[in-house]
Amino acid sequence: MDAYSGRMVSAPVRLTGPLDSRENFDNAACPIAGAIDVVGARSAFLLLREAFYGTSRFDDFAERVGISQPVAATRLRELVEDGLLAREPYQEPGQRTRMQYRLTEKGTEFFPVLAALMEWGNRWVRPAPLEFRHRDCGEPVHTELRCARDHHVAASDLDLVLTTR
Amino acid sequence: MDAYSGRMVSAPVRLTGPLDSRENFDNAACPIAGAIDVVGARSAFLLLREAFYGTSRFDDFAERVGISQPVAATRLRELVEDGLLAREPYQEPGQRTRMQYRLTEKGTEFFPVLAALMEWGNRWVRPAPLEFRHRDCGEPVHTELRCARDHHVAASDLDLVLTTR
Repeated sequence: MDAYSGRMVSAPVRLTGPLDSRENFDNAACPIAGAIDVVGARSAFLLLREAFYGTSRFDDFAERVGISQPVAATRLRELVEDGLLAREPYQEPGQRTRMQYRLTEKGTEFFPVLAALMEWGNRWVRPAPLEFRHRDCGEPVHTELRCARDHHVAASDLDLVLTTR
Repeated sequence: MDAYSGRMVSAPVRLTGPLDSRENFDNAACPIAGAIDVVGARSAFLLLREAFYGTSRFDDFAERVGISQPVAATRLRELVEDGLLAREPYQEPGQRTRMQYRLTEKGTEFFPVLAALMEWGNRWVRPAPLEFRHRDCGEPVHTELRCARDHHVAASDLDLVLTTR
């Protein structure tokens, strides 16, 4: 039963304590909404994908994501302003100084989102012959929910808790 | 070193075999792009969040996500058409039949994406006193990358492989 509408639904996550009534759930404070507000554009996701695949030069970003240079410039500037990418100069011998982009710690920690999107997209939307594998052992890699005691956790085993930190 | 531009970058994922040259990376076939094409709108992410938090009625979706009823109607219809939500009738005693929405298997499997967004948003964008915990043991829950041999895997330990399935 859905605790606050009184009807059967497939609600896997249980909102606990003060959250149960929904009166104490502050939509404006939701970190999911916060994340989407920063990285919500399709091209932002794909530019980050490219950064994880090793792209660093402006022209390569635009070409590999398949977006125009003005769109690439805007999105890359936003990703730099939001702290996911850092912009830094580089110079090849005999060439003028150019700028390249690399992932910051904030950007690097976004990877599980992309990995989960890849896994879901590959299963449900656009199956592709692509797989992430663990370099050391060669085994396929998946995103999982684990608790601090290392249990596998399904969404239906989750409580959403208001902490007092 | 970045294998295809020849410069130092923070590329954590290694594109292997035929993918290394990027000539064999088909951007149009990317499952991340496919996933974003289905669930790319901010309101789609937040409607799915609500479905995971137990919302089932149309009015509740619109109100809790903070979007207009026309936008909610459009997005919910898209999520039903794309197979993440199912629409089904329900009836309260003495009331007319109404429609409610529940997550399908395809929708339920989207949860790791939301969990990863929540974790990243909470750390880097909009810290909130919210935490997912494992109902059985009470421990906090995180999204992780694990290989089939149960090793923890960092993005920098990943190979992207073209499979032959």
